[in-house]
Amino acid sequence: MDIVQELLNGSPCALARAITAIENEYDDAFSIMKKIYPHTGRSHVIGITGPPGAGKSTLTDKLAKQYRKQGKTVGIIAVDPTSPFSGGAILGDRIRMNELTTDPGVFIRSMGTRGSLGGLALKTSDVVKIMDAAGKDIIFIETVGVGQSEVDIVKASDTTIVTLVPGSGDDIQAIKAGILEIGDIFVINKADRDGVERLNIELEMMLNLNQSVVDWRPPVKRTIASDGSGVDELINKIEEHISYLNHSNKLAVRRTKRTRDELLSLLNEQISRYMLDKITVSGELDSLITSIEQRMYDPYTVVSKLLSNYLR
Amino acid sequence: MDIVQELLNGSPCALARAITAIENEYDDAFSIMKKIYPHTGRSHVIGITGPPGAGKSTLTDKLAKQYRKQGKTVGIIAVDPTSPFSGGAILGDRIRMNELTTDPGVFIRSMGTRGSLGGLALKTSDVVKIMDAAGKDIIFIETVGVGQSEVDIVKASDTTIVTLVPGSGDDIQAIKAGILEIGDIFVINKADRDGVERLNIELEMMLNLNQSVVDWRPPVKRTIASDGSGVDELINKIEEHISYLNHSNKLAVRRTKRTRDELLSLLNEQISRYMLDKITVSGELDSLITSIEQRMYDPYTVVSKLLSNYLR
Repeated sequence: MDIVQELLNGSPCALARAITAIENEYDDAFSIMKKIYPHTGRSHVIGITGPPGAGKSTLTDKLAKQYRKQGKTVGIIAVDPTSPFSGGAILGDRIRMNELTTDPGVFIRSMGTRGSLGGLALKTSDVVKIMDAAGKDIIFIETVGVGQSEVDIVKASDTTIVTLVPGSGDDIQAIKAGILEIGDIFVINKADRDGVERLNIELEMMLNLNQSVVDWRPPVKRTIASDGSGVDELINKIEEHISYLNHSNKLAVRRTKRTRDELLSLLNEQISRYMLDKITVSGELDSLITSIEQRMYDPYTVVSKLLSNYLR
Repeated sequence: MDIVQELLNGSPCALARAITAIENEYDDAFSIMKKIYPHTGRSHVIGITGPPGAGKSTLTDKLAKQYRKQGKTVGIIAVDPTSPFSGGAILGDRIRMNELTTDPGVFIRSMGTRGSLGGLALKTSDVVKIMDAAGKDIIFIETVGVGQSEVDIVKASDTTIVTLVPGSGDDIQAIKAGILEIGDIFVINKADRDGVERLNIELEMMLNLNQSVVDWRPPVKRTIASDGSGVDELINKIEEHISYLNHSNKLAVRRTKRTRDELLSLLNEQISRYMLDKITVSGELDSLITSIEQRMYDPYTVVSKLLSNYLR
């Protein structure tokens, strides 16, 4: 049977193989994605980001278990964009989630950087689609760090949870890094630590100042993921956010924006490949580089010429 | 007089204006870069990266002063890729470098993220070229953090210094994040702190394991930038590395690779803009998005069609 048909029928093995095809850019990757696409758009996607050590994996673990208790199926994508040379580094973290890994209703996948970061965000959104088509009700994207690359990755989410931790010293650093704009819910994890009040006050202050917030004011919740404290309340907030997205037209707006962003990323990636192939195979690239190095041409003029040669 | 001519004559005002033109993508940005290009390739570019709080600014400050004592002119580019929403955040840090800011032989510029991160790496390398053409002997690129984006930014350097700090807890985190492969010199700053021996041993061990190192084994130097300890020895190591680059063919190899990377980045950026303009102006993009959302088409088929429509 066709891998896509098997996947649609719920085969975890077909699901794993489809993801591997995307990750490694096998020849059938595009045809798999084409066939899968009509079956997407049903899952709710939850992004979980925050600085290293904030307990994101443990939190995701606890949230996943709660959703399982509700009878929902769960997909988890753990992405590590900060480790260009150690793809799959998070996997170790995930292995301890052994209760989850033996549950057939949960599918876990870890992804590292192979190729460009832009590529990673694009691949993450493809893996979301595959899990979506495979019928997962809730999909978590867990990503380490708080830089622009993480922001790009969690853009594939409907609800984004920013996890911070008290007394880490980079509270402000984390908040500054564009995190305020992407968080739908803020979690102060390890809330039994010193500094929780200060971080809470700082966060609330910054959220009050943030003028882009109009009809959904991101709540700040405290959790201790390790013993499960606050996880139920967090699930309630997630459900409130889902309900808000559905009752306003925000979900549609977000998804249209996402379709646009993904289409343009895919377009850019494919054009870049096409051009690189063209100018590499013809040997043009090497001779252009030489002439630029000898200062016979400048790169700006060369690029203009390439554009007029290859574009209609 | 023409801005480029003024810049080549050493006008700091023209230098600042040229950088602003690149940063804000003014209409004359390309023509400035074209005219500047033949005058580039003379500076030695030193990248300084490492986790927040490692004292990179202070270290850059001290290194710059030493180079000034040797009569060399200095450019400093402070890049903050982690703050997509707070362009120019580092500037505050730099203001304390008041001895340097009053020295006409030093030019300091801070850059934040405007637009994409890829764009930031590209702009940083353009600013390097502008300072190079303006006759700066030594150009520092100082960048916060240790993720992929920082790696991309310091790729514009001939010599990359990775700055770490003892007892920060993210020693291993920092080392893991692809930092080992990009560092030509490792600095343990704040070397009067606890944990310096442990970090030093860990670093040396990882460098010994790193098989990509062949003829230049990155040295590990200890500094206390705040009081200047170890800065002279660090300058000696930098000079050793410069001499190694010149006497092997490594400088040429690195610069060819850089020319290639920059040409491809510029090409990708320009094609993306061209395509976006084309499909936005015609209204094609919006109708494609609608048909994708309605699952009439999938994004993969749409991209294939766009490529065959617009590429020769």
